[in-house]
Amino acid sequence: MAYIHVALEGLKAYCHDFFEASGFTAEQSVQITDVLLRADLYGIESHGVQWLIRYHKAILEGAIDPQAQPLLVHQSPISRVYDAPRSMGQVVAVRCMQEAIDLAKSHGVGMVCARGSNHYGIAGYYSLMAAEQDLLGLSMTNTEAIAIPTHGRKAMLGTSPIALCMPADPVPFWFDVSTTVVTRGKLEVYNKREAPLPEGWAADAQGHPSQDAALVLKNIIGKLGGGIFPLGGSDELTGSHKGYGLGVIVELMTAIFAGGTTSPHVKHSGNADTSFSFFAMDYGIFGDKAEIRARMSTLLQELRDSPRAEGCERIYTHGEKEFESEQRLRALGVPMNEKTLSELRDMGKLKGLQLERYGLEDAGK
Amino acid sequence: MAYIHVALEGLKAYCHDFFEASGFTAEQSVQITDVLLRADLYGIESHGVQWLIRYHKAILEGAIDPQAQPLLVHQSPISRVYDAPRSMGQVVAVRCMQEAIDLAKSHGVGMVCARGSNHYGIAGYYSLMAAEQDLLGLSMTNTEAIAIPTHGRKAMLGTSPIALCMPADPVPFWFDVSTTVVTRGKLEVYNKREAPLPEGWAADAQGHPSQDAALVLKNIIGKLGGGIFPLGGSDELTGSHKGYGLGVIVELMTAIFAGGTTSPHVKHSGNADTSFSFFAMDYGIFGDKAEIRARMSTLLQELRDSPRAEGCERIYTHGEKEFESEQRLRALGVPMNEKTLSELRDMGKLKGLQLERYGLEDAGK
Repeated sequence: MAYIHVALEGLKAYCHDFFEASGFTAEQSVQITDVLLRADLYGIESHGVQWLIRYHKAILEGAIDPQAQPLLVHQSPISRVYDAPRSMGQVVAVRCMQEAIDLAKSHGVGMVCARGSNHYGIAGYYSLMAAEQDLLGLSMTNTEAIAIPTHGRKAMLGTSPIALCMPADPVPFWFDVSTTVVTRGKLEVYNKREAPLPEGWAADAQGHPSQDAALVLKNIIGKLGGGIFPLGGSDELTGSHKGYGLGVIVELMTAIFAGGTTSPHVKHSGNADTSFSFFAMDYGIFGDKAEIRARMSTLLQELRDSPRAEGCERIYTHGEKEFESEQRLRALGVPMNEKTLSELRDMGKLKGLQLERYGLEDAGK
Repeated sequence: MAYIHVALEGLKAYCHDFFEASGFTAEQSVQITDVLLRADLYGIESHGVQWLIRYHKAILEGAIDPQAQPLLVHQSPISRVYDAPRSMGQVVAVRCMQEAIDLAKSHGVGMVCARGSNHYGIAGYYSLMAAEQDLLGLSMTNTEAIAIPTHGRKAMLGTSPIALCMPADPVPFWFDVSTTVVTRGKLEVYNKREAPLPEGWAADAQGHPSQDAALVLKNIIGKLGGGIFPLGGSDELTGSHKGYGLGVIVELMTAIFAGGTTSPHVKHSGNADTSFSFFAMDYGIFGDKAEIRARMSTLLQELRDSPRAEGCERIYTHGEKEFESEQRLRALGVPMNEKTLSELRDMGKLKGLQLERYGLEDAGK
């Protein structure tokens, strides 16, 4: 698949106009666009503007309703729970994290959950929102079941991402990972390459480790059994039960707390019925913020400066790769594959938007 | 090493009297004894009464002072931070978790950290304290550095345990794991057996994967480089960076928040300078507690009932193994190896305690 780099500003304007033409307010269109473009800038193409086509279809099918209004179903001085059926994930998520941030500023912590929503993009976006306000941020989402529990053979848990961001200098600690060994996107890459999967990634329908990407994906799609292993792999010997437990924790913090649909019952298409959680904490509840931030910065610097394994070039702390990618791509343009660009063109026509008017055709490098 | 089963009540009385004779109050002696015996009952011998000899030596050396009084150095309506140099870990930890529980009951959440302390036993004990009060409980501790960061070759992080407990029926979800592939105790077991380590557990001094338990342990003890890999193993391909990031999170929540010594600077002997964190949350801030608890119980039951991998007998949820062990051993007696029993006898003599008077010699089965 050939990639071209397109101008960031043009792509941003195009996405914004596309979402506005789809029924979102100008403010919501800015929010959704920012979540998607940040993923592309961070090098996480799987969660970037290539999702436009899926959102477009979901809106046409009524699975996503741009007018959906989340309903407050429970609250306490430090928490809120929203029922948000058929809502756009990013819109609900930005609002919930902003409320968690406001609660944290007045009460030290804020915890907001939502249920019944749809895909919200990269979990890390929301944890970073809190860090940009000098707070600790945490977000999780459940998803369609794709991971098998240790000793199981049926997918019961999602990829169960956990994103946590803590302010530090020169860059925050920005942790955003699935609690499975990998995500489905990685299996698809190996399948396209017709390469065997690395050991310990996935299980066949009987629950045995399998390196056959096509088989595993076929089983996942057909719900025939098997799936991705939890972080820690196939066996307790390598900590499979630890990743499995982290997946249960994500399920607890999202669907169980929010009263939403748990992963075994979350659908792949239609209204995904996804639950989220957002947590913000003013880490000043533990002491002087400048001192705490400096201690964190020192720890991260010590990790980066620690002796490297023979043959390894660099020890990263979490987020460095993504922030460096962002710097590079803001200058260079957003890499976009031809298929995505062609989808944008076709969808745009339906809304009276011309890709060329946004300078997206001739920015190729 | 031969094991005998000793009567629980006798062992409890012996430990209690031993700690009281060492300078702890009767209440503190009950607390320390309970943390240690629960570990043995749960089948976690590595964290049980075999620690008595180390505590005994630490008290003699002055690294642990039974009279130590934690000093409150910071507080907010939902948080407290204690400076607790030369304190007995269990004593400080029980107190801190009890305070976190009290804060959670009045404010929804409570977060208490301590620094400068010593080994506190199983992290899970404290998360369970909260669950026994129908709250969500979480505890973490940093430890001496033994884990290398992804791409590194110097131990920079501890085993970084995370324990989380959520009430459920018939048994709570009780997650208590190190965020490394394994702990040092497991390496020692393989070393004694002269068996090669499983792949992906540990690194040699150059940072390359090694299956030589003796070499890895020698390097760890001599601080010659290498150590245990983070959960996820040696490579980003299997999620090494995820376990590495979880280790950083534990460091953040303990030493960084508490203002304590970070793992690269924590000592193995003397006052360990360990930091802890304790978090309790009244999950009623998200809705009706009975409903939330029922939803969690259903999820756990669905996991246990889900189809098993071919050749696997059972899918566990976290804590089941330990609670079943406890039931079995409460009836059968606590398994104790001869070396530990002999240490107890020798230490007891110094305090005027006779093992025989506690019925610990003739309970062998």
